[in-house]
Amino acid sequence: MLNRVRSAVAHLVSSGGAPPPRPKSPDLPSAPSPQTAAPPEAPRSPPARAGSGSAAPAKTVEARACFSRPTFLQLSPGGLRRADDHAGRAVQSPPDTGRRLPWSTGYAEVINAGKSRHNEDQACCEVVYVEGRRSVSGAPREPSQGQGLCFYYWGLFDGHAGGGAAEMASRLLHRHIREQLKDLSCWSSQKEVTHESLVVGAIENAFQFMDEQMARERRGHQVEGGCCALVVVYLLGKVYVANAGDSRAIIVRNGEIIPMSREFTPETERRRLQLLGFLKPELLGGEFTHLEFPRRIQPKELGQRMLYRDQNMTGWAYKKIELEDLRFPLVCGEGKKARVMATIGVTRGLGDHNLKVCSSTLPIKPFLSCFPEVRVYDLTQYEHCPDDVLVLGTDGLWDVTSDCEVAATVDRVLSAYEPNDPSRYTALAQALVLGARGTPRDRGWRLPNNKLGSGDDISVFVIPLGGPGSYS
Amino acid sequence: MLNRVRSAVAHLVSSGGAPPPRPKSPDLPSAPSPQTAAPPEAPRSPPARAGSGSAAPAKTVEARACFSRPTFLQLSPGGLRRADDHAGRAVQSPPDTGRRLPWSTGYAEVINAGKSRHNEDQACCEVVYVEGRRSVSGAPREPSQGQGLCFYYWGLFDGHAGGGAAEMASRLLHRHIREQLKDLSCWSSQKEVTHESLVVGAIENAFQFMDEQMARERRGHQVEGGCCALVVVYLLGKVYVANAGDSRAIIVRNGEIIPMSREFTPETERRRLQLLGFLKPELLGGEFTHLEFPRRIQPKELGQRMLYRDQNMTGWAYKKIELEDLRFPLVCGEGKKARVMATIGVTRGLGDHNLKVCSSTLPIKPFLSCFPEVRVYDLTQYEHCPDDVLVLGTDGLWDVTSDCEVAATVDRVLSAYEPNDPSRYTALAQALVLGARGTPRDRGWRLPNNKLGSGDDISVFVIPLGGPGSYS
Repeated sequence: MLNRVRSAVAHLVSSGGAPPPRPKSPDLPSAPSPQTAAPPEAPRSPPARAGSGSAAPAKTVEARACFSRPTFLQLSPGGLRRADDHAGRAVQSPPDTGRRLPWSTGYAEVINAGKSRHNEDQACCEVVYVEGRRSVSGAPREPSQGQGLCFYYWGLFDGHAGGGAAEMASRLLHRHIREQLKDLSCWSSQKEVTHESLVVGAIENAFQFMDEQMARERRGHQVEGGCCALVVVYLLGKVYVANAGDSRAIIVRNGEIIPMSREFTPETERRRLQLLGFLKPELLGGEFTHLEFPRRIQPKELGQRMLYRDQNMTGWAYKKIELEDLRFPLVCGEGKKARVMATIGVTRGLGDHNLKVCSSTLPIKPFLSCFPEVRVYDLTQYEHCPDDVLVLGTDGLWDVTSDCEVAATVDRVLSAYEPNDPSRYTALAQALVLGARGTPRDRGWRLPNNKLGSGDDISVFVIPLGGPGSYS
Repeated sequence: MLNRVRSAVAHLVSSGGAPPPRPKSPDLPSAPSPQTAAPPEAPRSPPARAGSGSAAPAKTVEARACFSRPTFLQLSPGGLRRADDHAGRAVQSPPDTGRRLPWSTGYAEVINAGKSRHNEDQACCEVVYVEGRRSVSGAPREPSQGQGLCFYYWGLFDGHAGGGAAEMASRLLHRHIREQLKDLSCWSSQKEVTHESLVVGAIENAFQFMDEQMARERRGHQVEGGCCALVVVYLLGKVYVANAGDSRAIIVRNGEIIPMSREFTPETERRRLQLLGFLKPELLGGEFTHLEFPRRIQPKELGQRMLYRDQNMTGWAYKKIELEDLRFPLVCGEGKKARVMATIGVTRGLGDHNLKVCSSTLPIKPFLSCFPEVRVYDLTQYEHCPDDVLVLGTDGLWDVTSDCEVAATVDRVLSAYEPNDPSRYTALAQALVLGARGTPRDRGWRLPNNKLGSGDDISVFVIPLGGPGSYS
């Protein structure tokens, strides 16, 4: 993900942009206390940042006091060091001997090929108990009303410009969701408002609260950078997939592919970004134009006719070039190189409250939204077999692997294991990560077809939808 | 459509809200000169407006100097009078004896049951020749570059709060499209920009230019009210369907239904409307809140917890009621009763530049957008048979007729005619209009199942996609 944020580290200044303070929820710790302590040998030197070209300011980097991996990996200090080795890029999974993840979920990850010092992906997998909200008097509710409920939770967080936001989100986002879901226990049926829409609203609001907490606490706790967040909640028969960023989730069911998220990039969100620039031109600081042109306009082209697209257009039309069309375009570049304000390549995520346009004090944040899109999948509507899985991956996986290739790997790996062997999902996650990483050859990581593998951090969850132990 | 605009007529005041003037295109007439002159017996008295409850101000109504129907109906003064009769509601179609519409297109219409004085729907069907744009020197281009091209054009315009906007759009919108398409002849291939995206952009811009012309000329030419616009352009093998409002287009192909538009209503556009109110709170004038609640909040509920939805949410969550939540909601009501600012039930369309919130000077227009959504259908990708049709209808048809019922009528009527009988498409249009109108029974217009038929104006085009004379 790091190469998606140009010059972001160099602009991690401590100035403004914070939203008005909101009272903290009582159950939420304000300081993200690391669950995995920094190993004594964890390096503290400034990370080498290939592609950014400029060293990060010392104060930001020194503040990055610890490096952790998901607790469920149960890494020893030596194991943590191996997980942090860019040369070997060993694939990490929870140990076979320990307690399995809920639903026998499979997980695997690998560090990047050197573009950032540490693995900036983070992951979380939890069973979360929601206690009903207490009544106004402070007394607990009637047992029938406030018994509480449980949800299963998986999260992938792909950090950029530092690992702080991803670490904080991996520790706290599910607690924000729990806090929001407390209202469910006092919900009485109202027309139009379904139970499902309340869970969706709870997840949406939890993302916003998480982002606001990062804004509040970024100075005290060095929440550097930002992160994409892809989250799955299973509650009362339904799977909720919430995505903010360019991670991706698909269900592979009986060989069929069901997309469960879409990526949020300058290209997919062009019209939202342009509309914001059009309605709030002050956010462009006189430096950018919200209009899109097929190429950069030259000053000598003033007065000529040129193709353009405005916020409310899907097609292209001609206009006469005016002076302000010479400004830098709000959205530019194509594919993986597309950028908002020449700075960032994703348009949804958590954190990034200090991110500024290169050589400017213009904040990126209003264009970068923390709100996820939530898709719902009803598990009870289909008889799932042990080979039906929900695959979550950060962009390290999807940059070099198509949906169809993932479905083929699902078929190939799972058919090599007994249906009731709970280790098959971890084997599948490992195969997916290895298939995206490739092997070292010709001075690079290469796939069997000799194309370059992903040099990014790669993290994958494989969640069985009908496997042993699923939603039991 | 009229019942979709509450109190709109009473607020047709002549004050502000016009966008900055834009130079007129030289080829476009500034005054909409009626093609069908007002018959001497055309009534000039204020229209009876069932449902609005209040009489329109005299100056507005008196200014409505003429009433016309599409020229291709070739109505005599007597025929015009019959078309204007709310009691008989005779179905109108082009005469069998005259020149057929291009592609043997079928058309039928019927006036409303009395809710507005005249039929406020309008229609247009034309073959339009586009001359290439002249070079800067004024000399015509090389023949190879500027031969010009032809497009086929169909438009349905469903007026509200007066027929002026619909009449003006039916006379001029295709000319704006022609003007925009002139650029196509000087188009040289640029990366990313396809020929198709240029046609889409031309149509999108033509809607905007049409709307701006209405804003400029509304005082001089009494362009009362507004209109939904559903337009089809056929050019170089592709069908472009542009929709702004709640009319609807579907293709029925070999019995399969392919939706070619979607409706724009306060419900389908909730998030766009709320976002606009959120980013530009001054548009709400301190009278409305952009938040949505399941019901109107009472002052005594201040401080209590209540479900709400914000612009970036699809789900519902709880918040504590604050003072400004007591304001009237920007979007309220359900289904056909949903309204923006308690005033209008469609959110895209042309005109309405004078429309204000009831008892207020707050303009509706920024929430009502003139931009269409354009869908493209490639006619060359499928071998069409004479029974494959594109059906366009105003909401008078769709309020009481489902897609499936339309497809069943297509099958029933067309199979009763020889495939090469060009009158079959008009017979189909008539059957669709009759099926939506019903017959007078039990003090109302009723369908065979005894439900109420549509009391609205109903207009239908049936465009054969593989019939005799299609795109020849």
